[in-house]
Amino acid sequence: MLHNLDIDNVILTALKEDMPLGDITTENLIDSDSVSPARLIAKENGVIAGLDVAERAFKLLDTDIEFKRMVQDGTLVKHGDIIAEIEGNTRCMLKAERTALNFLQRLSGIATQTRKYCELVKGMPVRIVDTRKTTPGLRFLEKYAVKVGGGSNHRFCLSDGVLIKDNHIKAAGGIKNAVELLRGRIPHTIKIEVETETLEQVKEALDVKADIIMLDNMKLDTIKEAVKLINGRALVEQSGNVSLDTVYEYAAAGVDIISVGKLTHSVSALDISMRFI
Amino acid sequence: MLHNLDIDNVILTALKEDMPLGDITTENLIDSDSVSPARLIAKENGVIAGLDVAERAFKLLDTDIEFKRMVQDGTLVKHGDIIAEIEGNTRCMLKAERTALNFLQRLSGIATQTRKYCELVKGMPVRIVDTRKTTPGLRFLEKYAVKVGGGSNHRFCLSDGVLIKDNHIKAAGGIKNAVELLRGRIPHTIKIEVETETLEQVKEALDVKADIIMLDNMKLDTIKEAVKLINGRALVEQSGNVSLDTVYEYAAAGVDIISVGKLTHSVSALDISMRFI
Amino acid sequence: MLHNLDIDNVILTALKEDMPLGDITTENLIDSDSVSPARLIAKENGVIAGLDVAERAFKLLDTDIEFKRMVQDGTLVKHGDIIAEIEGNTRCMLKAERTALNFLQRLSGIATQTRKYCELVKGMPVRIVDTRKTTPGLRFLEKYAVKVGGGSNHRFCLSDGVLIKDNHIKAAGGIKNAVELLRGRIPHTIKIEVETETLEQVKEALDVKADIIMLDNMKLDTIKEAVKLINGRALVEQSGNVSLDTVYEYAAAGVDIISVGKLTHSVSALDISMRFI
Amino acid sequence: MLHNLDIDNVILTALKEDMPLGDITTENLIDSDSVSPARLIAKENGVIAGLDVAERAFKLLDTDIEFKRMVQDGTLVKHGDIIAEIEGNTRCMLKAERTALNFLQRLSGIATQTRKYCELVKGMPVRIVDTRKTTPGLRFLEKYAVKVGGGSNHRFCLSDGVLIKDNHIKAAGGIKNAVELLRGRIPHTIKIEVETETLEQVKEALDVKADIIMLDNMKLDTIKEAVKLINGRALVEQSGNVSLDTVYEYAAAGVDIISVGKLTHSVSALDISMRFI
Amino acid sequence: MLHNLDIDNVILTALKEDMPLGDITTENLIDSDSVSPARLIAKENGVIAGLDVAERAFKLLDTDIEFKRMVQDGTLVKHGDIIAEIEGNTRCMLKAERTALNFLQRLSGIATQTRKYCELVKGMPVRIVDTRKTTPGLRFLEKYAVKVGGGSNHRFCLSDGVLIKDNHIKAAGGIKNAVELLRGRIPHTIKIEVETETLEQVKEALDVKADIIMLDNMKLDTIKEAVKLINGRALVEQSGNVSLDTVYEYAAAGVDIISVGKLTHSVSALDISMRFI
Amino acid sequence: MLHNLDIDNVILTALKEDMPLGDITTENLIDSDSVSPARLIAKENGVIAGLDVAERAFKLLDTDIEFKRMVQDGTLVKHGDIIAEIEGNTRCMLKAERTALNFLQRLSGIATQTRKYCELVKGMPVRIVDTRKTTPGLRFLEKYAVKVGGGSNHRFCLSDGVLIKDNHIKAAGGIKNAVELLRGRIPHTIKIEVETETLEQVKEALDVKADIIMLDNMKLDTIKEAVKLINGRALVEQSGNVSLDTVYEYAAAGVDIISVGKLTHSVSALDISMRFI
Repeated sequence: MLHNLDIDNVILTALKEDMPLGDITTENLIDSDSVSPARLIAKENGVIAGLDVAERAFKLLDTDIEFKRMVQDGTLVKHGDIIAEIEGNTRCMLKAERTALNFLQRLSGIATQTRKYCELVKGMPVRIVDTRKTTPGLRFLEKYAVKVGGGSNHRFCLSDGVLIKDNHIKAAGGIKNAVELLRGRIPHTIKIEVETETLEQVKEALDVKADIIMLDNMKLDTIKEAVKLINGRALVEQSGNVSLDTVYEYAAAGVDIISVGKLTHSVSALDISMRFI
Repeated sequence: MLHNLDIDNVILTALKEDMPLGDITTENLIDSDSVSPARLIAKENGVIAGLDVAERAFKLLDTDIEFKRMVQDGTLVKHGDIIAEIEGNTRCMLKAERTALNFLQRLSGIATQTRKYCELVKGMPVRIVDTRKTTPGLRFLEKYAVKVGGGSNHRFCLSDGVLIKDNHIKAAGGIKNAVELLRGRIPHTIKIEVETETLEQVKEALDVKADIIMLDNMKLDTIKEAVKLINGRALVEQSGNVSLDTVYEYAAAGVDIISVGKLTHSVSALDISMRFI
Repeated sequence: MLHNLDIDNVILTALKEDMPLGDITTENLIDSDSVSPARLIAKENGVIAGLDVAERAFKLLDTDIEFKRMVQDGTLVKHGDIIAEIEGNTRCMLKAERTALNFLQRLSGIATQTRKYCELVKGMPVRIVDTRKTTPGLRFLEKYAVKVGGGSNHRFCLSDGVLIKDNHIKAAGGIKNAVELLRGRIPHTIKIEVETETLEQVKEALDVKADIIMLDNMKLDTIKEAVKLINGRALVEQSGNVSLDTVYEYAAAGVDIISVGKLTHSVSALDISMRFI
Repeated sequence: MLHNLDIDNVILTALKEDMPLGDITTENLIDSDSVSPARLIAKENGVIAGLDVAERAFKLLDTDIEFKRMVQDGTLVKHGDIIAEIEGNTRCMLKAERTALNFLQRLSGIATQTRKYCELVKGMPVRIVDTRKTTPGLRFLEKYAVKVGGGSNHRFCLSDGVLIKDNHIKAAGGIKNAVELLRGRIPHTIKIEVETETLEQVKEALDVKADIIMLDNMKLDTIKEAVKLINGRALVEQSGNVSLDTVYEYAAAGVDIISVGKLTHSVSALDISMRFI
Repeated sequence: MLHNLDIDNVILTALKEDMPLGDITTENLIDSDSVSPARLIAKENGVIAGLDVAERAFKLLDTDIEFKRMVQDGTLVKHGDIIAEIEGNTRCMLKAERTALNFLQRLSGIATQTRKYCELVKGMPVRIVDTRKTTPGLRFLEKYAVKVGGGSNHRFCLSDGVLIKDNHIKAAGGIKNAVELLRGRIPHTIKIEVETETLEQVKEALDVKADIIMLDNMKLDTIKEAVKLINGRALVEQSGNVSLDTVYEYAAAGVDIISVGKLTHSVSALDISMRFI
Repeated sequence: MLHNLDIDNVILTALKEDMPLGDITTENLIDSDSVSPARLIAKENGVIAGLDVAERAFKLLDTDIEFKRMVQDGTLVKHGDIIAEIEGNTRCMLKAERTALNFLQRLSGIATQTRKYCELVKGMPVRIVDTRKTTPGLRFLEKYAVKVGGGSNHRFCLSDGVLIKDNHIKAAGGIKNAVELLRGRIPHTIKIEVETETLEQVKEALDVKADIIMLDNMKLDTIKEAVKLINGRALVEQSGNVSLDTVYEYAAAGVDIISVGKLTHSVSALDISMRFI
């Protein structure tokens, strides 16, 4: 459940973007006290995510609009399924329609895509996680949708997780130095992840007790060797080249975490429409 | 060229989203006065859009960062092409990297997709236009990217264009009433568009001199009849079911405008990476 | 009816401007649970506009304040008429009083002034429209008041309407070039207006099928010739030198639209006071 | 001199109001690197106020625009006088033009009106002061313009000055109680003003050593008696019914301060235009 | 009583600061519909201030949370006293807890400290007042807490009170010039205070009828002489070196006002905890 | 080094709080082009923190003000030491003075206090860390000051760290359940900390491999037993009752981390003044 404190700003921004000066068609044609019922209907199969956001888009225009959910976030709907029954002031419903749908369709698209990845590795001891390759301004919601689709979250941003990359390693003079320096400087509550490109680097990261070791764009065989080498002493994250075609192989290689940029950066909106009835 | 006044807010929001409390890896490992050169490189073929935004993301962190464009918005790049040479404070470059890329990749993805549609109807007297099915908060930028890709813009929002839909028609008691009411109430600078589902409605809209007639989800034959009927007395817009497979046929049917939700709601980010050199 | 989404920000800004740190007189003298009835009373004749704003100013301080309208926006009131009966928390009523009145008096002043112009051309096929010469920050409300007074709106801003002026014409190399360039670049939903100073320019604009032709500061005879020349092929807008003394003559010359900066840039507030009873 | 910290927000709001999505005429017709000179020219006689604001409107769009003042705030200009020479990016100049003028014309209108009042009481020991009847959101600027026109300021808002009105007096059980209660509760840095309607109330206010006594809508004879009665023991402020016709008589009656709502609530914009040369 | 208009922004900022992305512990462990009772309990003796703020912190997350006060702002509580009984949604109560306490503890700390100073001069004709040495962003609340503790407020900021310091005096060419210049330029509603370091300066300030004379870091004997010299013709404010050890002596010296930076710049939070029961 | 992106908002808020309407003393007495040199001087011994903030306060009013640091953040200064030499526009320097000092004094107070704690455990393998008991709105800066003083940071907020408290444990049905549930739901990058009150709970937390175990208000002997029991298998954090008197004993008991609310919630500002020279 999303709290209004976390979502109101982004919804209000979207409503204002679509109505900086009202809706000149609706305000000039629809009576201000007209009331209508409508339905949100799935036009294709997929996983619903973002009902709190869609509902709030309507409620921010008129708190009296009723929004009755027929499914929940996480439900797999089929073409033709009713997602919600809505009833209230016609003007406000028409004004909020597109904003509500733009959020709901995108988030459901992300949940649907995430679920496809998760289905392919079902039952395996691996997490499908997101990245920071999200839509500017919507990261919180997109990461929420990943969880609705069955995935897990990586760090939220540059402030709440450590990922030591190539440049950091060079600047610090090696993985060992980088990890030790950081360990002394960051809060004790944060884990340290190191990006590695070779088995040599994996060993270095292991030696200095990195909490998480990312295998960056490694070949499948190397990944398997790395997993064997690490042997449970750190979490192993596979990153790069992950697609629906390859995700199973990476999981089978024994990594703990597979991060997938496509979960959020290349998504088809789930087709959903609002029908007045 | 995008003006900072129009883009700074959305970029700052994105930078803050990725760094609410700084970048704990970079700030603890990279010297505050370190300077590095880097390159933005295309990892697949596509149309670049959003260089003003990407550059500004870096400049908002450090106005001294140099950002030298090797291509322009609208350039078709190939895998491996250098998009820009960047040089400046290493910390700031690492901090802005993901935000700059998130914008650039999404906008370039939209431009690339738009160009595919435009290529298919090249030389034909038809416009490929966007819709209001855009990412909440990014509509201005996404509509810009559509133009970079060769497309045109539809109305920006509910405030600056009229589109009379089914519900408006019902509420007003028919297309004639709706158009006449609106014509008396809206600014004389705004055109009136009517959404029609049958030839009967097309005739009604013509009779009352609608400026634009949208053919909503009509079959190809009906579209052709509608075009013949309208015969230049109004702009004709085809809407619904448009894909790369169908766009040519719709254009060949003689409509003036084809609106495509997919230009913005279902986009693959163009793969672009930043390499320190 | 104005939606809170459209007006809350500007009202809150005004309340904060008048009470950055509370009302030190009222908070130190009036009991926090004191309740009082009061009335808004017209102190001169005029057209009321902005009751939604005035009511909201009180409600934003205390949602329980009752605001009972005795007239509606658009009502012509006389000196002494009761505009609204208000009752609620005394502190909040005293705090909101000036802000509510500042809005209501200015908007009613605009509606009253607009009505004077409209009365003078009553029954004639002409619109009295506003301009962009509005108070910074209040354009939306001021344009609303113009409509309440019987006028119509011109474009809202530089983003939602095209007006090709002298400099644009020069830069594009003539009216023909300017209109054609623009037609290819702007959304198909927006009309093109051209500002003309001579009959020669009127002809050029007609030839290139401008949607609206503005006659800028022309003499009455020239205006009549222009109207004859245009002959219904474009909307004709008269601009410049319009006052209560001249508006009838311009209308009689046959133009479709008369734009009047004075509707918003030089307005006397309608005298309205709040009386505790 | 106005500090950017105090004016940037309100100017940016105005620029955004006029260009939520850019200037579609200018951006599509004027080259992005075009440079033009222009002039601000007075179209009628009056006092200039607000040059800092006008200049900043241009500079916020392009810091490189040159703005050379030919007069200063407070200068009395004549029809035809050049107010400023401006030169810079043509696009930005066209975009900022209306916003800059809307501020400059309104503030100059206020300064001009204020000066008329001040001229009528020139040499007399009296201040012409403004009220809280200002345009929502622009009070700081409007009070600045009053000073430019030769007037003085009253309290800025409900937080920084005390004015005990009828309702406060009733709630506190008389003027004496009200003043004494307040004196104990407000900062020692703030004066206490009491609104009086009768000589009896004036006496009460005097007895309790009010710092300022407002004579509210009193007749001229009563005012004279009040002034005699007070005899320098408090500042005397005349309020109500002040116009250009009556201001001299009130001043001659010996009051210290005359507050005039019309200085800000009923103002004609000073006619100023920008000419490209 | 604090109005939400005055406090919501600062509370929302604090809630967002503590939960930019929700509470990952609570949201993952506590049921969304769980309800709990809790108590705010004093862990040491002191004066409570800020209950409106604490209550609002909870209500901004869930308006249905009940917050029953067992004491009021200004109450002197003892270790173990129950301050409030709270009941409502468990998640929201856990999320708001720290923010509510951070405000309540700091404001109560200020009230407690202020009371100590006031107790020491009880019955004497002197005010203990605050300064501008407050926590950035919290001045309004901190000055409120000073009043709750029995103190009074000095000017709120640089805009609503005049204090002529050394540099101003030098720039104006002496106290006389400074006061006279200012008197002509500031609103008639504002008193003029002059900072003095010698008896000579005190005399100058008296001569020019300063409303308030600040004795800055003077020795006790000099203060006594100054008080005698001023003899009620201006308010006398002692500033500098005031502590619990010295406040009585300064008061006994006959000054009207003693300003104490420590009231707000060096405060121990009052220990208060929330207990679920 | 603090980035402007992270501190500008809070500084601007503070400047506006102190000057909502300018500085009426300074603007009316000091010439707008006057330039002055000044010094920041320590009035007592302590650790400086916040020079970036102080400098920025001046620069936000006038970028041309020179701010030359004589010490750095972290420097231990003595009474009389010059902290910075400043020179620039006199008006802007006077306007920014108090805001700059309010930040610098508070942050230096925190750094100074933190250093005292750190000195007492110098050389011991233990971290002194802060808590969430910070000033609303200033947490980022206050946690920065803790680091400057030699301390370390705990989690920043409820979003970036897990701390399972009593209520969470109850709701989840025990420590084991709580940790396991959370481990499956939170990002793999975040450590899990459990608050324990008994050795029994310590064992439970150990069994389920909590990353960090907090000993909440335990007696010294129990702490020692807990440390022995944990034996390096988790980080051990001591919380509660920590003061300058007790910190050494806790450290000697072998815990890894000691969290101290007093570092930020009960701080004396370091006395620093600005002197014009």
